[in-house]
Amino acid sequence: MSKNSLNIGLFGFGCVGQGLYHVLKNSTGFKANITKIAVKNRNKPRAVSKDLITYNKWEILDDPAIDIVVELIDDAAEAYLIVTEALRKRKHVVTANKKLLALHLEELIALQKEHGVSLLYEGAVCGSIPILRTLEEYFDNEPIKKVSGIFNGTSNYILSKMQSERIAYTSALAEAQEKGFAESDPSGDVNGDDAAYKAVIIALHAFGLVIGPQAVLNLGISNLQKDDLGYAREKGCRIKLLPLVKRLHQNSICVFVIPQLVSSDHHLFQVENEFNGVIVDGEFSGEQFLQGRGAGSYPTGAAVLSDISALSHGYGYEYKKHRQARPLSFTNAVFLNVYLRYNTILDLEKIEFDEIYEKYESADYNYVVGKIALTTLIAEKEFIFQNRLFVALINDETDPPTHELPRQKKQKTNSNPELRKKITA
Amino acid sequence: MSKNSLNIGLFGFGCVGQGLYHVLKNSTGFKANITKIAVKNRNKPRAVSKDLITYNKWEILDDPAIDIVVELIDDAAEAYLIVTEALRKRKHVVTANKKLLALHLEELIALQKEHGVSLLYEGAVCGSIPILRTLEEYFDNEPIKKVSGIFNGTSNYILSKMQSERIAYTSALAEAQEKGFAESDPSGDVNGDDAAYKAVIIALHAFGLVIGPQAVLNLGISNLQKDDLGYAREKGCRIKLLPLVKRLHQNSICVFVIPQLVSSDHHLFQVENEFNGVIVDGEFSGEQFLQGRGAGSYPTGAAVLSDISALSHGYGYEYKKHRQARPLSFTNAVFLNVYLRYNTILDLEKIEFDEIYEKYESADYNYVVGKIALTTLIAEKEFIFQNRLFVALINDETDPPTHELPRQKKQKTNSNPELRKKITA
Repeated sequence: MSKNSLNIGLFGFGCVGQGLYHVLKNSTGFKANITKIAVKNRNKPRAVSKDLITYNKWEILDDPAIDIVVELIDDAAEAYLIVTEALRKRKHVVTANKKLLALHLEELIALQKEHGVSLLYEGAVCGSIPILRTLEEYFDNEPIKKVSGIFNGTSNYILSKMQSERIAYTSALAEAQEKGFAESDPSGDVNGDDAAYKAVIIALHAFGLVIGPQAVLNLGISNLQKDDLGYAREKGCRIKLLPLVKRLHQNSICVFVIPQLVSSDHHLFQVENEFNGVIVDGEFSGEQFLQGRGAGSYPTGAAVLSDISALSHGYGYEYKKHRQARPLSFTNAVFLNVYLRYNTILDLEKIEFDEIYEKYESADYNYVVGKIALTTLIAEKEFIFQNRLFVALINDETDPPTHELPRQKKQKTNSNPELRKKITA
Repeated sequence: MSKNSLNIGLFGFGCVGQGLYHVLKNSTGFKANITKIAVKNRNKPRAVSKDLITYNKWEILDDPAIDIVVELIDDAAEAYLIVTEALRKRKHVVTANKKLLALHLEELIALQKEHGVSLLYEGAVCGSIPILRTLEEYFDNEPIKKVSGIFNGTSNYILSKMQSERIAYTSALAEAQEKGFAESDPSGDVNGDDAAYKAVIIALHAFGLVIGPQAVLNLGISNLQKDDLGYAREKGCRIKLLPLVKRLHQNSICVFVIPQLVSSDHHLFQVENEFNGVIVDGEFSGEQFLQGRGAGSYPTGAAVLSDISALSHGYGYEYKKHRQARPLSFTNAVFLNVYLRYNTILDLEKIEFDEIYEKYESADYNYVVGKIALTTLIAEKEFIFQNRLFVALINDETDPPTHELPRQKKQKTNSNPELRKKITA
């Protein structure tokens, strides 16, 4: 596609849709017309001409004059119908819907190939940070060791407020909702679902791996309590919700979303509020770090604009890592170093550690730090959630099951010494 | 160009050339053959087969089987001859030589167009950080407000050692040379030339501006003394050598390289040693930050590999901002907020401030902080250098000449109070 003037059919005119409308109007070099906007709610006032608005998706999908469909609605199931139908009708598509993408990656790759069109989705992962394009075009020939980062602005906003301003979870969430960083139902953000969708997309572009989000353990931050924050603070750390996509051996990759303690010299320590940050560890380049706004009307609109512009230049993802003749497989066979806050000693019978480095017990706060199999956390996810236990990685080191992890140096906790009785296993 | 196997003619087999050789051999998906390596020194032992080596550049330039010329030599004048000749012979070229680029941008753009070939140079700016590709492809339609960062690994290494480990300038430089981060003649790194070349390249890709490096004021770090570091430390800052490429009004851009005080909450505060960091401030996206290794054999080799791979996919810079119908002009008509360490009061007659916010005098250390015209610094560059005065920006705010800058709140210095006599102008 190489036209001077593109016609865009837009689905959704919420926060990001309006952001796109603004950045398109104020772009320096690029001219594209939004010729139709399909929306659902007939009662909302719209800041654009009535002639642009339609309530019938087929007015866009069936219009041969429309070159590019931009899908920016909330409903992943409806988005799936729109995106796949548009691709079948040989329209290029831009979407920012990570759930839709994570659930249907394989089919979406095949549909692009079958119909000779492109689907771009930079705005779906880390807002304004051009991480997908960087992985596709810059790291295309470099073996990646690890991708990690802060992929969810809502949970990061809540964590920042809780840790920097010592605001309680519920108040921090309410503030995030008030500022438009969290939706009315924030469960997908705080339970790690959203970050897991993004990790699935990253796993494809960084490692060529196609997995479903159901394969990815995601332990969110909704069970986080004051004592957990106190523990992190004593260690000079902050708790961040981090997806980790990591190559273990030559051919196996693990992917999970677990809160992690990051120390003050860590890139992500200072990534606060609605900002996102991504670390890409390449075999040749070493650690690269990218930071930018992970959410918001204009930043995400800018990512969508960039995709539209790329489509106008004939760009499409080539899924280079996916096509490279180096098959990588997904694995959960890995040991992790975690902090677990538990209620009673019976919890530890259920959630069995391979090795315990530290154990602390008191009247109302108990924790262990040790090595645990990822498969144990997966098996007990529901138990952890229901019993309001909290799990955080103490680092992002991973250990294959056959190796012994060296014992960590014990660290002393220094608050409430009179209440605390230190037991080392 | 879309071939399964590319033939590369390589000029230079030093640090980056050998890095490229390594990353090409260990790349995941990409196969390209280095069919000839042209080197100068006949007496150096080479870690590759003798058959690959030539001492005659025409063996590469005249070989029709060679698709891509990769130029990685030190000598900018010779590099210019090689690169322009290769383009004229309709070969694609990759170079990492920022001096050659900065001195001849306009001609190099024209040559590419005339001969229908591409010149890529991601490795020339900030080593492994994909900043040019990001500006070209991701920010192509977004108005940029500012690009800044740490563009020179050598000077950053020296500054880091001086500030974190309190090592003297000469020892820090010697250590940088020993570790291979500084060349035997580091003058271009520490006097700001190297950063200025990179700023010129950035000005093209971020703003479409073609200027020569002679237009860019560069005040380096070679006059830095202990008292300057003490001043920065008292303010909770670190001194970093930062190029600033900034849009002032709708149509004017200033570009200069001056050391700057950055505070602990600034992205660049933690960018230490040989690392580089770039801040791109976009009108829609807000502040983006990219960090990675700015030098080194494999990281720069990886940047060159990425360019070679892009060429194999038909990629070329389109210089989109340069072609966009929004002419921007270069200006030095701007006021800056600077710290100046001077020797005697006569220096201040020569280097005239528009407004002085703070003045400090003692037996052996004098400074002023105030507003000064960039044109004054340009006029007195030689005087500053010869008299070992030191200039640093106290922030990156800029003021057009017609506006009055509000007076800053005076800050007290708190060390050596008995020695210091505070005079406020």
